Amino acid sequence: MPSGRRQQRCCLKKFKITFYPDNKSVEVEKDKTILSAAISAGLYINSSCAGEGVCGRCKVILRKGEVLSQSSGRITAEEKKRGVYLACITQVLSDLEVEIPVESRLNLEGLTQEEVNARMKKDYTEPEDIEPAGKVPSEGDFPFSPLSRKVYLKLSPPAAEEKMSDLERLERRISQAEKISVKHTCLSNIKSLGELLRSSDWKVTAALGRRDDFTEILFIEPQNTSGKNFGVAFDIGTTTVSGQLVDLNSRKVLGTKATYNKQAQFGSDVITRIMYAKDTEGLEDLHRAVVADMNEMILELAAEHGVDLNDVTYAVCAGNTTMIHLLLRVDPTYIRKEPYIPTLNFVPVLRASEVELRINPRGLLYCVPGVASYVGGDVTAGVISSGLFKQPHLGILIDIGTNGEVVLGNRDFLISCAASAGPAFEGSGVSCGMRASKGAIQKVKIKPVSFDVSYSTMGSLKPLGICGSGYIDIIAQMLNAGVIDKGGKIKDAAHKRIRLGDEGREFVIADKQASGTGKDIVITESDIENLKRAKAAIYAGVSMLVRHMELDLSRVERVFIAGGFGTYLDMENAIRIGLLPDMPKNKFVFIGNSSLSGSREMLLSSRAADTAADVARKMTYLELSSEPLYMDEYMAALFFPHTDLERFPSVK
Amino acid sequence: MPSGRRQQRCCLKKFKITFYPDNKSVEVEKDKTILSAAISAGLYINSSCAGEGVCGRCKVILRKGEVLSQSSGRITAEEKKRGVYLACITQVLSDLEVEIPVESRLNLEGLTQEEVNARMKKDYTEPEDIEPAGKVPSEGDFPFSPLSRKVYLKLSPPAAEEKMSDLERLERRISQAEKISVKHTCLSNIKSLGELLRSSDWKVTAALGRRDDFTEILFIEPQNTSGKNFGVAFDIGTTTVSGQLVDLNSRKVLGTKATYNKQAQFGSDVITRIMYAKDTEGLEDLHRAVVADMNEMILELAAEHGVDLNDVTYAVCAGNTTMIHLLLRVDPTYIRKEPYIPTLNFVPVLRASEVELRINPRGLLYCVPGVASYVGGDVTAGVISSGLFKQPHLGILIDIGTNGEVVLGNRDFLISCAASAGPAFEGSGVSCGMRASKGAIQKVKIKPVSFDVSYSTMGSLKPLGICGSGYIDIIAQMLNAGVIDKGGKIKDAAHKRIRLGDEGREFVIADKQASGTGKDIVITESDIENLKRAKAAIYAGVSMLVRHMELDLSRVERVFIAGGFGTYLDMENAIRIGLLPDMPKNKFVFIGNSSLSGSREMLLSSRAADTAADVARKMTYLELSSEPLYMDEYMAALFFPHTDLERFPSVK
Repeated sequence: MPSGRRQQRCCLKKFKITFYPDNKSVEVEKDKTILSAAISAGLYINSSCAGEGVCGRCKVILRKGEVLSQSSGRITAEEKKRGVYLACITQVLSDLEVEIPVESRLNLEGLTQEEVNARMKKDYTEPEDIEPAGKVPSEGDFPFSPLSRKVYLKLSPPAAEEKMSDLERLERRISQAEKISVKHTCLSNIKSLGELLRSSDWKVTAALGRRDDFTEILFIEPQNTSGKNFGVAFDIGTTTVSGQLVDLNSRKVLGTKATYNKQAQFGSDVITRIMYAKDTEGLEDLHRAVVADMNEMILELAAEHGVDLNDVTYAVCAGNTTMIHLLLRVDPTYIRKEPYIPTLNFVPVLRASEVELRINPRGLLYCVPGVASYVGGDVTAGVISSGLFKQPHLGILIDIGTNGEVVLGNRDFLISCAASAGPAFEGSGVSCGMRASKGAIQKVKIKPVSFDVSYSTMGSLKPLGICGSGYIDIIAQMLNAGVIDKGGKIKDAAHKRIRLGDEGREFVIADKQASGTGKDIVITESDIENLKRAKAAIYAGVSMLVRHMELDLSRVERVFIAGGFGTYLDMENAIRIGLLPDMPKNKFVFIGNSSLSGSREMLLSSRAADTAADVARKMTYLELSSEPLYMDEYMAALFFPHTDLERFPSVK
Repeated sequence: MPSGRRQQRCCLKKFKITFYPDNKSVEVEKDKTILSAAISAGLYINSSCAGEGVCGRCKVILRKGEVLSQSSGRITAEEKKRGVYLACITQVLSDLEVEIPVESRLNLEGLTQEEVNARMKKDYTEPEDIEPAGKVPSEGDFPFSPLSRKVYLKLSPPAAEEKMSDLERLERRISQAEKISVKHTCLSNIKSLGELLRSSDWKVTAALGRRDDFTEILFIEPQNTSGKNFGVAFDIGTTTVSGQLVDLNSRKVLGTKATYNKQAQFGSDVITRIMYAKDTEGLEDLHRAVVADMNEMILELAAEHGVDLNDVTYAVCAGNTTMIHLLLRVDPTYIRKEPYIPTLNFVPVLRASEVELRINPRGLLYCVPGVASYVGGDVTAGVISSGLFKQPHLGILIDIGTNGEVVLGNRDFLISCAASAGPAFEGSGVSCGMRASKGAIQKVKIKPVSFDVSYSTMGSLKPLGICGSGYIDIIAQMLNAGVIDKGGKIKDAAHKRIRLGDEGREFVIADKQASGTGKDIVITESDIENLKRAKAAIYAGVSMLVRHMELDLSRVERVFIAGGFGTYLDMENAIRIGLLPDMPKNKFVFIGNSSLSGSREMLLSSRAADTAADVARKMTYLELSSEPLYMDEYMAALFFPHTDLERFPSVK
């Protein structure tokens, strides 16, 4: 924010806004919206439309005070009488008392703010699909050469006849030891170098970091600290943020965390977030939200593994193009405007502190390069992690996240597309959805006729919700048991598990006695519709790429499935619902969060980072919205498994 | 200063110190010295010993209040009674009233602080030895390729099928236009690039700057601003700071300024300044002082020539090694400790804002590389400017500044030494000395017998003081007229111009009626002694290099004289006093401030900057203090012209 603007604002009168039931107060200036006041107070209110007054999810009840609100078709006459307003288009004119009803909480399960906060904290869980802590990943194709390293150096003190400066002496020693020349881009290491070298008796450790095509001295420490060098890999998803702490000496993964992306409070998909980011403040809100997630994760990982944050010298981030723009505070506006041009796909290596990442202030940040506005570095990382880029035979990578992306190719070519699947498989936008973390229903069986349900949860806890693999099982099993038809409608049957809810029929998976939330865990027709659209978008994307290249699915030797499912995805069920093409099971490989594992590979090998850049440059992009056949493919896929059963012989 | 320290300091009690006759007050913490209080108040007090309580030049009179002072032999019993203290070793214990007597002012002429301030301002004069404003320097050996340039770019807007990011589009256009690839080291240009490109209809100007071996996009502006690109060259001398504003499109020199280095208040030579810089605060004081000089000069030059400071994109600085350390806030401690190792000779290219230079905040700073602790980038710049590095025949460069430096060599070898001459020829440390600026006596004739003096001043003003060339003339003419003997002692004669002053005999050059200061302008025996030592150091340096290389002066084809003399140095007189070796006059070339002109050449040609780096790497350094013969040479030169008249046949 330019300082002039800030100064101007300081002079404005402030009003006190108190939110209930949290009983939290905050002071804001006149004309600010109630939504922004809630954000300032650290309270999460639903908002899917980026504060445009369209989605109607941010309803609040005004108990006391004066406001100015735009009119909205989302508010009924009855609600108007009760003092209901949309927080995003209602401006503050006096001190206010405002109630945030349960349904406007970010969390659709109606948790209180405290519960949300507790979950937000607690939710830095270790995803089960990730290598367990302590595992040393196999070196694979990429030789171990981490993006940063610490080198212990014993320098010979200057003799009387020598005139070489301290800095040259240090640089020459590094060049002898490491066979590279190093650079400096600022003065920070140099100012006290003379004293440092002498007080440590010419024994120091230099942290070296790779910046694009040169190596920089990140910092210099007295004595031998080379044993302590760590890096952190991130996958920044629209719905979920994951992070992994890695020992850059032993290559060991120390721990992995995942959490919901706090940006979700400003909109559930990239489009609404881009709209929210239309001014500097909105952009800053989104930036801060995701950086807070990342920093909390770094802090927890470091604390759990006894790592000093100053010894974390490198961060690698993969994310879709919008996520990376927001992380870097780069205006994302033109990502959503035709012809959909991002500001950057290749991000220069930055000082991590430029985006407020709390690793060593001199540590670096590498963002995995992306391909286009809707195929980002997360997909590039997936191509690296899966090995698709080097295979002689044809393969497909399907990344099932909030934005579904598909890549078709081999070592000779790579073509990608984006199928906006929505976050249903990530547990968002579905009534009882949750990430694949502890308490999530992940495997389900439903008996025909009796409709008896059996399930297993992650961590074998009482169920808290349903994750992506659980939903796939549920739909497939409901199809098989005859609970739903091909179109996804729930059978109009008199059964204790089938009932009419607020959004049409719903099927009870676990009742409140069985659940860990004290509420029924259900799947609604609306949920099924969301999941159907998501699977249709992905299937249509796969079909389109194959058609575009004039190939046939039968020639595909390998399908890599990436995403938050974990290793529990039931292949048969995924094919049964038409999410995945009907191919022999042995052609499918689950690679979990390949965006995160690809990032880690780059952290551990500069060769992997170089390869990622090559991949991003080489990969072409097919814009589905300008492909006339795409809509046909999508519409045809809006059935379970598909309108054209010839494509699903195993189901048929 | 680390913030912890700052916080701690905020809690300490503060005392009010009022200085007279300025009637200026400042609040300082208990135990601070009166000297540091005066500096905080913006008042200049003499101090040549870096606050060690040795030189006795910082005497102040305590009118009121309590202090704690170390005892000093510099304070007489009588002074003690009058409340005289040395400001540098006297600590504040209560509110104080302190008088700064005239003799403790920085300015030896006894000017009041206001007069000093006025002179400090006024003193940004255009040195007469520099190319006049408006001159376009000849291209010389170095092709025009300035270290920064602005390139106007018309980009083709993205078509529907294109997926290239805005940044790639810009980089490719630059690479097409300029045949180079560019880099980024941070995000600043990228954040709003999308909006900038579109709102300017894809017509922008990129400022490109060279950073070591790569080119960076400094900033991007809408529309065509390529006509406005400027650079600034600096020579940071121990006594004098000079700056030159250059148009980087036309190569035209727009203007040149010079002023006293404000660091002089902390010590007159590099050794005392290094001592003063022994803690972070001292280093910061010195840094701030010289940066203030530079910024005032930039501001004045820009204002005079209608240049927007944001259009100044590059600064090149040459200075001795200590000056560069202080400019960069790099601890200079080890420059003065055996074996005299600087922290750095080669400075990475920096953002100019890192040292608070007030050019475009994204503009760059190149410091001309130095050779050793006592042969800095100013000498390298002189070698570039003189062309010594490329000559087939043998040449000598003599830079007569506060530190006299001598280089001997040609295109095959270069050897250098430092002869600590002291600032006498720069007008410091001599009673009526001043820089070669308006009002300085620069040429003098003294008639034998009558001792009649005729002189000319720069700008033909009433004389304000004597500059280097004036002193050389005066001593030579006094020798010829018999006013002084070979040892520099003034004749004990009854003459109105000869009298006994505080420091022995003195000779009046201009009496107070004739002078512009209202005071007599004189030369004292002490002045003559200082000048004799300075010339002896330089002559001995020349002799030592020639002896060391087992060469003979007769083989030297060219002697370049650099320094603040201007073009008015009288060769015969300089040989007469033994400053310069006795050689045919046509072998001498005056090159003025070659540190400044060399800096400007580098600003205008990256080839020159590359050559400077080669020169600095190639040049060897002879440490005179470890040469047994040097002291003999120096002692032998402590006569006018020399003990060995065989060496000065033309004088003989």
